[in-house]
Amino acid sequence: MWANNEVGTVQPIAELVKIAHEYKTVFHSDAVQAVGCLEVHFQNTDLDAMTVSGHKVGGPQGIGALVVKRDIELTPLLHGGGQERDVRSGTLAAPSIAGFAAATTTAVSQSVSRAARLSSLRKDLVKRIQEQIPDVVLNGDAENRLPGNAHFSFKGCEGDALLMLLDAQGIECSTGSACSAGIPQPSHVLLAMGRDEITARASLRFSFGATSTPDDVDAVMQVLPAIVERAKRAGKPAVAK
Amino acid sequence: MWANNEVGTVQPIAELVKIAHEYKTVFHSDAVQAVGCLEVHFQNTDLDAMTVSGHKVGGPQGIGALVVKRDIELTPLLHGGGQERDVRSGTLAAPSIAGFAAATTTAVSQSVSRAARLSSLRKDLVKRIQEQIPDVVLNGDAENRLPGNAHFSFKGCEGDALLMLLDAQGIECSTGSACSAGIPQPSHVLLAMGRDEITARASLRFSFGATSTPDDVDAVMQVLPAIVERAKRAGKPAVAK
Repeated sequence: MWANNEVGTVQPIAELVKIAHEYKTVFHSDAVQAVGCLEVHFQNTDLDAMTVSGHKVGGPQGIGALVVKRDIELTPLLHGGGQERDVRSGTLAAPSIAGFAAATTTAVSQSVSRAARLSSLRKDLVKRIQEQIPDVVLNGDAENRLPGNAHFSFKGCEGDALLMLLDAQGIECSTGSACSAGIPQPSHVLLAMGRDEITARASLRFSFGATSTPDDVDAVMQVLPAIVERAKRAGKPAVAK
Repeated sequence: MWANNEVGTVQPIAELVKIAHEYKTVFHSDAVQAVGCLEVHFQNTDLDAMTVSGHKVGGPQGIGALVVKRDIELTPLLHGGGQERDVRSGTLAAPSIAGFAAATTTAVSQSVSRAARLSSLRKDLVKRIQEQIPDVVLNGDAENRLPGNAHFSFKGCEGDALLMLLDAQGIECSTGSACSAGIPQPSHVLLAMGRDEITARASLRFSFGATSTPDDVDAVMQVLPAIVERAKRAGKPAVAK
């Protein structure tokens, strides 16, 4: 992944590609989270393949692109009409493709200003959470992360409890990736990073986007300290067997 | 296929399913062309699986559904987030799904009246072509076909020549499936039906849809006889090696 969808850490893709190529290994990067937030130059990295998606750049859902170097041979998964030079059969979703292209063009052209704006909001939130809330752990790299991503473990809390209490105040966060929404399992990303299960389940992701403002940071900080206290009193998270 | 996308022939799916099940064979039907034009009752046929698509019922492109019996085990082709109970990973395209559902509901509720209307237009076109144009072969079953599909071989003509000449008169047809548009190969469907290569390449599909009217049939018949004569004079189709 160019940037992780949960904790927001940005990987040194160009360096990793270099190592992979030393060992004659083909390298694909999931850049879905990165495009529009970071400068993503497929050619500069020497990547062999890269995936991007419409719904993360303000475009339609259900559309994405696999960018590949010209000399990479692909094995089709979907067979039939032979569209897209036999790589992916199926009637092309022309309106979605056009929407995806327009959204990507806009997102990429605005990515530098957008990154600066979201980064400033995120840094403010991170600083204020670390100052005002005890026993908090920032997950992911402090600097080298998606500009709009702030991911914390609030020790002694259950992430789901924080999620519900914030939702009741009109603040929407998430406890993990959208893929695993509703699944009461600790994040595989946090466990792989060495967090224990209780800390993993005590985590919450704040994401800033196109419509976010400094007022939103103020709104979070007005209610979060009390919500964390309340969640702590509700008891420590149960550990799944 | 419940109904063929080129020549429009409707298959006796319930009978075929019965035979397949006698031999313990799982049966899937591509019903993309049938839904909205014919009465498609998944349960009445005892089918194991069936595919339908949004763009053939007036809904969005890029969305479809695989309908399966509850006891069929599926092997996923796409892996990742585990959406759709692990059968097809990927962020769900919610707007497309909603559009597909709305379009399908409308198309299915109107399918009987729509079939009657399109069938009448098609029968009129078929009758007038057979009366007015010599050396013409109707491909596919004369009665048991998609209501809006009229597929002919115009002997002595090249299908592409007819296509261009009709296009110049504002009449849009096709020489095969959209999947193979621009590919100068005779239709595999017609060859499989026993047509020789020259006859297969002399074919043209007329399709009626939601906006078609009797005036459209008149418009075709005003120009088609002269166009066929002109295409014949342009020479017989070349046979691909």
